[in-house]
Amino acid sequence: MNTPESLFVQMALMSWQTQNARLDDLLNKLSDEQLMNETAPGRNRGIYLLGHLAAVNDSLFKMFGLGERLHPELDAVFLNAPDKSGQTMPSIDELKNYWKEINAALTKKFNAMQPQKWFEKHTVVSAEDFAKEPYRNKLNVLLNRTAHQSYHLGQMNYLKS
Amino acid sequence: MNTPESLFVQMALMSWQTQNARLDDLLNKLSDEQLMNETAPGRNRGIYLLGHLAAVNDSLFKMFGLGERLHPELDAVFLNAPDKSGQTMPSIDELKNYWKEINAALTKKFNAMQPQKWFEKHTVVSAEDFAKEPYRNKLNVLLNRTAHQSYHLGQMNYLKS
Repeated sequence: MNTPESLFVQMALMSWQTQNARLDDLLNKLSDEQLMNETAPGRNRGIYLLGHLAAVNDSLFKMFGLGERLHPELDAVFLNAPDKSGQTMPSIDELKNYWKEINAALTKKFNAMQPQKWFEKHTVVSAEDFAKEPYRNKLNVLLNRTAHQSYHLGQMNYLKS
Repeated sequence: MNTPESLFVQMALMSWQTQNARLDDLLNKLSDEQLMNETAPGRNRGIYLLGHLAAVNDSLFKMFGLGERLHPELDAVFLNAPDKSGQTMPSIDELKNYWKEINAALTKKFNAMQPQKWFEKHTVVSAEDFAKEPYRNKLNVLLNRTAHQSYHLGQMNYLKS
């Protein structure tokens, strides 16, 4: 079990899960009214960033070849359009449920993956590019997504009074 | 060179360097006046977060057993005290220079480290705890610091007009 590969994978997964848990914790503390607020004057609202982070995690199913996404409909509102663009959004309760549902399903898939699978190419990079740049693997995407999530968590933390 | 260890070290270092480069880029875009502003009403100012991130990176020298820190004096102002506590701060130009100086020196040390060194325990964990929790190594600290930096970068990005 303690091969170098399995240890790296454990570290990267722990880092991703830590960020998920921090957002879970923040969501437990914020009221719906606070989540409807802008994180700073003129900036993205909490509800938008919640949907954005749910959509980004949901995109990992296809990117890692782990089956169909749970909520592809989120992309139009939370990835391809900015906040306050007049799009109809799911309710905060729905988004919170999606967030938990997506992460629970991903965690199950991740835990079932053999460590070496993480070092294989993801579905968005070509075999040719991957041969030249072997770091463009699934684990690297997870590292980048973890940093991305932390970036927006820093902003969402400003919703607290 | 392409052992699993060296590949993972490369990925983690790239992720850390990406965050450093993003802050460099943001610093090039912000005026001194913008850096003196609060990132959001009542929140930390840009100058404080810059000093805070410089202090956190500077702490890695000792944590990884890489020699003496360059700017231990930053801790009193940027780690152990909150912003606006009346402490005398270095100027923005000084802090920008420290930030670059610390990262350049760290990068040099990191590039000279053998990949397997990253999987050794850092100086803050006991040998006993490390035996039980082998993921508490230097590379794991780097992953956590990368996420921490991204967290504050999301906030500092709000300084842009």
